[in-house]
Amino acid sequence: MFILITNDDGIHAPGLVALAQELSELGRIVVVAPDRERSATGHSLTLHSPLRAEEVRPHWFAIDGTPTDCVNLGIHGLFRERPALVVSGINRGANMGDDITYSGTVAAAMEATLMGVPAFAVSLALTHGCSEDYRPAARIAARLARTLMTHGLPTDTFFNVNIPPVDDAQIQGIRLTRQGKRIYGDLVIENTDPRGRKYYWIGAGDLDFKDVDGTDFHAVHRGYVSLTPLHLDLTNYRSFDELSRWDIFSSQS
Amino acid sequence: MFILITNDDGIHAPGLVALAQELSELGRIVVVAPDRERSATGHSLTLHSPLRAEEVRPHWFAIDGTPTDCVNLGIHGLFRERPALVVSGINRGANMGDDITYSGTVAAAMEATLMGVPAFAVSLALTHGCSEDYRPAARIAARLARTLMTHGLPTDTFFNVNIPPVDDAQIQGIRLTRQGKRIYGDLVIENTDPRGRKYYWIGAGDLDFKDVDGTDFHAVHRGYVSLTPLHLDLTNYRSFDELSRWDIFSSQS
Amino acid sequence: MFILITNDDGIHAPGLVALAQELSELGRIVVVAPDRERSATGHSLTLHSPLRAEEVRPHWFAIDGTPTDCVNLGIHGLFRERPALVVSGINRGANMGDDITYSGTVAAAMEATLMGVPAFAVSLALTHGCSEDYRPAARIAARLARTLMTHGLPTDTFFNVNIPPVDDAQIQGIRLTRQGKRIYGDLVIENTDPRGRKYYWIGAGDLDFKDVDGTDFHAVHRGYVSLTPLHLDLTNYRSFDELSRWDIFSSQS
Amino acid sequence: MFILITNDDGIHAPGLVALAQELSELGRIVVVAPDRERSATGHSLTLHSPLRAEEVRPHWFAIDGTPTDCVNLGIHGLFRERPALVVSGINRGANMGDDITYSGTVAAAMEATLMGVPAFAVSLALTHGCSEDYRPAARIAARLARTLMTHGLPTDTFFNVNIPPVDDAQIQGIRLTRQGKRIYGDLVIENTDPRGRKYYWIGAGDLDFKDVDGTDFHAVHRGYVSLTPLHLDLTNYRSFDELSRWDIFSSQS
Repeated sequence: MFILITNDDGIHAPGLVALAQELSELGRIVVVAPDRERSATGHSLTLHSPLRAEEVRPHWFAIDGTPTDCVNLGIHGLFRERPALVVSGINRGANMGDDITYSGTVAAAMEATLMGVPAFAVSLALTHGCSEDYRPAARIAARLARTLMTHGLPTDTFFNVNIPPVDDAQIQGIRLTRQGKRIYGDLVIENTDPRGRKYYWIGAGDLDFKDVDGTDFHAVHRGYVSLTPLHLDLTNYRSFDELSRWDIFSSQS
Repeated sequence: MFILITNDDGIHAPGLVALAQELSELGRIVVVAPDRERSATGHSLTLHSPLRAEEVRPHWFAIDGTPTDCVNLGIHGLFRERPALVVSGINRGANMGDDITYSGTVAAAMEATLMGVPAFAVSLALTHGCSEDYRPAARIAARLARTLMTHGLPTDTFFNVNIPPVDDAQIQGIRLTRQGKRIYGDLVIENTDPRGRKYYWIGAGDLDFKDVDGTDFHAVHRGYVSLTPLHLDLTNYRSFDELSRWDIFSSQS
Repeated sequence: MFILITNDDGIHAPGLVALAQELSELGRIVVVAPDRERSATGHSLTLHSPLRAEEVRPHWFAIDGTPTDCVNLGIHGLFRERPALVVSGINRGANMGDDITYSGTVAAAMEATLMGVPAFAVSLALTHGCSEDYRPAARIAARLARTLMTHGLPTDTFFNVNIPPVDDAQIQGIRLTRQGKRIYGDLVIENTDPRGRKYYWIGAGDLDFKDVDGTDFHAVHRGYVSLTPLHLDLTNYRSFDELSRWDIFSSQS
Repeated sequence: MFILITNDDGIHAPGLVALAQELSELGRIVVVAPDRERSATGHSLTLHSPLRAEEVRPHWFAIDGTPTDCVNLGIHGLFRERPALVVSGINRGANMGDDITYSGTVAAAMEATLMGVPAFAVSLALTHGCSEDYRPAARIAARLARTLMTHGLPTDTFFNVNIPPVDDAQIQGIRLTRQGKRIYGDLVIENTDPRGRKYYWIGAGDLDFKDVDGTDFHAVHRGYVSLTPLHLDLTNYRSFDELSRWDIFSSQS
């Protein structure tokens, strides 16, 4: 039995190191993480070329692929045994609201879930100017890992956890939340390179969110850890009533 | 007003060409698609480097990025006007069940939805040995586009459409479905390269699915077009009852 | 017997198309070229991952690699027969002086030479504002190919040919030249991306050259085609006298 | 005044670390090296996208580019001062004969020379089963650096140094050599990936060389360090007599 740890900031990221250190007190850990930053890669899998695993130090494997690749190899390819738990993070920056669809950190937990291994993703909701101390978040992750290993997880479900960037004492508690709603800006920067060719750079724009009670955004901005249970069923069941009246559909008898 | 067309098989793919031809009868079309195949890239955005847009022929733009990048640029960067509709496809092969979390085709429609533009993804459920004729599927896509431009879409919702690889006459109808469930194999191939270094190649394994009534798999395998309404809220609301009893949570009062 | 054609501007480049058309009058041709632009890639070989060959139309193969990869596959991997001649080009822009050490076009001819196949590289010395008509250059390339197939090439030698961007009638003749000397500018542009991270972009700077009689630059700037015979021995023999007096060397007895 | 150190095995390679340690006794050193392995990249420059420099520890910069990019940035972009000397290596494996045209290690020294900075490349000629101890080679590199800073280098010339993989005491001396001649095998491996698509992998083949007195191969295989002075003029002057009689040339008057 071992815990598989990954992230999308790369194997040298301090959030990963802090997480690994804290989880190693729960049992055997193995790190399988991208060899460099792979943020915003979504749930992408490398199918058209092979992958390399370099053991950079004992039980730490750097992969030239995405976080999803790392989890896939960590479950199917690298070891004889399957992990008991996959923990992805600690991400540098929050993964809340619709942003989670882009997140490599969350995708890694998604991949584990698809492969039948319990998982959660954990992110530190850094804001400009706050210190990057991952240790309080790592302690919360360890506590959560312990709980999961006792309780188990609801079927086909994984957790997306976001932690405010404060000391242990300042954390108000953990809240069970739902995925909030982002308001995306529309900044694309257009420019020319040194050779006069035009290029476009997808910008950050002004990112805002709907501050609605019960959401991940709402909890974290009030000093709580947010824990959102996610599943992989994107079906919008609530739209069925309306849509079923459209005349394009055959009867479902 | 124009329709933006993209895909993940690349700008030269026959499914894209057939789709563009059929949709051009509905109004002005613009193609913004990856310069080469980008399947299984998920919802990934290129943030750390700039993108190029090459107009390979009038109103056809090849981008050195992912399908998500294409839609982002097509909405924010390339044109003064926003598209009225985004159609992504026609993908070579089905995008059903959990596979949609990996799909670049589906991610393109997801991106449009996040940016507030109605969208659907369309895939041809090719099987070994069947002919790759995208025209029947393109006609269904055009019919659906017409419907959407009349009805509109439910809030924050987009459609994932899968079409059996048969002639118009053999299609049994369109069904409103939910996302099915994949059963993934676990094949990772381990080998050594010509220089003796080990590598891993994520394999296809044996892909199976749960043949449950009401799902996309079930409909398509019986000759129906499946239309699954998707949204971007991955929250598993049904798990709230069980989870809220866990002792780790603060009261939500 | 066939002629292998490649380039570094990619398989869709007009210079390649013009070259292929003209050479096809001399015998059977096969095109093996990069699937997209790969300029300034030098003599680089893809050793750590596999390559794909897509036959985009009969006898035209697009490779997801460098020009050097294309020639290597075109000689060893793709066909049962070896080519009788490799022609690389027609490059968009000159390859003269020290620039040839960066050039993918020249590197392709270099690779053929290493593999024992006669080769030459051909470039159109475009200047700002001149028309991109590759046909006169293609006719000169065909004439040269004919000559090579009669005369053969000196051992371990290949040709680097640069052609002024003018009509047939305005070309003053062909000159046997030596590699000239570039004077490089030093422009690196420093900037920040939309997320505030610093980046560097290697710029063009002001490129100048020494206008010395007998060099490629000198000939082309006076309306002549330059033909420079190159070999792969970079040893600076003229420095031996001076260096042999240094006291670090053992006697060579 | 500082010494710029780079390589093509990546900033974490033991050969680079050993070199940096030894050269730091001669003066101030700065490392600017690729963030990961970039062997066989030739003299390739990243022109179409920007580069990042991450200071992984004081005065050690990891670049997401080629060795040539590293030297270009190290001379023009990163620092206010130009380096007094560029040393590239210590490469894992020899760079002798025609192989140097592919070598990223040698290309880095080439780039420095083009930019007017004295440079040499140094490689450890590892053979199967020998220990990877870079310290004896690093001591030789330091001794050579000291010599260069006294003597200077012949105009437009740089050194390519190969060192046998033995202890200091077993090194027979340093020889002034010329570039030897490789005999390349022709291995390209053809295979199919897990999805049934064909691929080609450029293989090592059987690499042989001509064991001729005076060459780098000959010296290193007899326990000597080889020092080959290289320049950037690839012109084959010895072919001029023969070629000038060809009837395609205009008179050079």
